[in-house]
Amino acid sequence: MSGEAGARTGGRRIAVLLEYDGTAYRGSQYQENGPSIQKELESAIQELTGQTVRAAFAGRTDAGVHALGQVAAFDIESRLTAAGLVPGLNRFLPRDIAVRAATEVERGFDPRRDARSRVYRYRIDNRRVRSPLERDRVWHVPKLLDVAAMERAAKRLEGAHDFAAFAGPFDGLTRRTLRRCEVTARCGRVLVEMEAQAFLPHQVRRTVGPLVEAGLGRMTDDALAALLEKAEPSSAGPAAPACGLYLVRIAYDGLDFGPDQGNGQS
Amino acid sequence: MSGEAGARTGGRRIAVLLEYDGTAYRGSQYQENGPSIQKELESAIQELTGQTVRAAFAGRTDAGVHALGQVAAFDIESRLTAAGLVPGLNRFLPRDIAVRAATEVERGFDPRRDARSRVYRYRIDNRRVRSPLERDRVWHVPKLLDVAAMERAAKRLEGAHDFAAFAGPFDGLTRRTLRRCEVTARCGRVLVEMEAQAFLPHQVRRTVGPLVEAGLGRMTDDALAALLEKAEPSSAGPAAPACGLYLVRIAYDGLDFGPDQGNGQS
Repeated sequence: MSGEAGARTGGRRIAVLLEYDGTAYRGSQYQENGPSIQKELESAIQELTGQTVRAAFAGRTDAGVHALGQVAAFDIESRLTAAGLVPGLNRFLPRDIAVRAATEVERGFDPRRDARSRVYRYRIDNRRVRSPLERDRVWHVPKLLDVAAMERAAKRLEGAHDFAAFAGPFDGLTRRTLRRCEVTARCGRVLVEMEAQAFLPHQVRRTVGPLVEAGLGRMTDDALAALLEKAEPSSAGPAAPACGLYLVRIAYDGLDFGPDQGNGQS
Repeated sequence: MSGEAGARTGGRRIAVLLEYDGTAYRGSQYQENGPSIQKELESAIQELTGQTVRAAFAGRTDAGVHALGQVAAFDIESRLTAAGLVPGLNRFLPRDIAVRAATEVERGFDPRRDARSRVYRYRIDNRRVRSPLERDRVWHVPKLLDVAAMERAAKRLEGAHDFAAFAGPFDGLTRRTLRRCEVTARCGRVLVEMEAQAFLPHQVRRTVGPLVEAGLGRMTDDALAALLEKAEPSSAGPAAPACGLYLVRIAYDGLDFGPDQGNGQS
C-alpha cells in the first residue's frame, strides 16, 4: 500500500480553494470513465511536483455543477510554498479549472468532515429569451416567477427538518438544519442561496425545483411544508438542472484563504 | 440582381436585437471562410421563413467580441409578427446567438447609419488568478490596477478629438466625439464603458490598452493626452484582447425594443 499512498508520506498537508466550470466534467469526484475535477487536480499536482497524491474534496458536485469555492486537500512533499503552488498548479490545470488560493493545514484536516458551513447558490435567468452569454451558467425559466411566493416557500424550509422529500436517494438519516434559504431577484435573474453545515445528495437542486413550482403558482407554500412534514423520500418533484448550481463557499474554524476567494460573481 | 435581393422585395422591414457570445465566430460580418453572426442569422431566417435575405448590422464586431445589444435589420415577407419571429428564429439559431427582441421598422431604416449612439463595455478581471467561469468573457489582468489613474486618463479622452492614435488603420476622417469614457471597479472587476455616436475601427480595444497601461503606472495621463494631440495613426499601443469587449447598446430615435434588452449583465 505504501507505494501508492502519496497521502501517507511525511509531507505537509495543503488545502486549495478551487473555482471550476463543471460543464465538461462528470462531477468533482474521480470517475472510472470520464473527466472529473479530482482527476485534473491530481494530474496537475503530479505534473508540477512529480508526486502521485489523492485529493479529498469538501463537497461532491455532480456533472455540470460549478464551483466558486470548492475546497480540496492533499499531502505533499515539496519545497514550494502554499502560495507558490497556486500559479504552478494553474499552469497545468485546464482553462475551466483554477486554484484560487492555497494554504497549509494541520495533518488531520478533512475538508468534508471539518466543514462548519456550506453555501450553495442557484442562478435562474427569468427573462423571456435564453441568454447565449450565460448558457450553461443558469437555468433559463422564461415564465415570470412570483419571487414573493418563492420567498415565502423558502422561509418554510429554514430550520431543522427531515429533508427526505427534498433529496435524492440516501441511505442514512435525513434530518438536517437549513440555516438559510434566501431568494433574491435583480435584473431578470433570480438567485436562491442556501446555507447548512451539511446537505443531503441533490438537496439544493431538489429544493430549487419545488421553489420554482411555487414561483409559477403551481405549488403553495402550505403544500411545500406538507412535503417536508411527510418526509417521503424524493417526493418533492424533479431537481432543477445542474447548470444553474454553484458551490460558493465552505467555512472552517481557523482556516482562511484570504480575500481573493473567487466568489465575487453573482 | 433582383433574384438575389430578398432585401428589395415588397415585404416589411424588421429590426432585431441580438445577444451573442463571439468566441466561436470570425466576427459579426459575413466571412467567406468561417462562421459569422450574420451568416447564422441569415440561415435562421431562411430556415424559419424559406426566404433568402441579407441582414444589415449596426456595428461591426471582430472575432471573439460579444454583444448584448447588437442591432440588425432585414426585409421579409412573412405573416409572422415581429414578436412571433423571436422564438421562431431562436429555435434555429445556435446556442451562442439569440434574438432578444424584434420590431417592425420603416422601410428606409439603416441600423448603421441611423444609430444615434453606441455603448461598448470592456470587462477586466483584476484578481490575481484567472477565472475559469469567466474565461473568454473578460481580459484577465493579474497585476493590481490603479483605478483612479485609469479614471483620470479616461476623462482626458472624453469630448471631440482626432482619435487616429487610438484606432486601427482607417481610410477616412478620424475625428469623433467620445461622449463618455467611464472606469468603474467592483469585486475585483474593472469596467470601461464608452459611448459615442460612432467609433473608429478597434477604437474601444485600442483605448482600453493604453488605459490599462495607465492603471499599471506605465503611462501618465499627460502622455495619453499627448498621443491624442499628435494623432499619429495607431500609435497608442496594442489593443486589449477581443474577449473582454461587449457591444452593449445602440440607440435610435423612435426605436425601442422594450424592457427585455438583455443588457442586465455587468
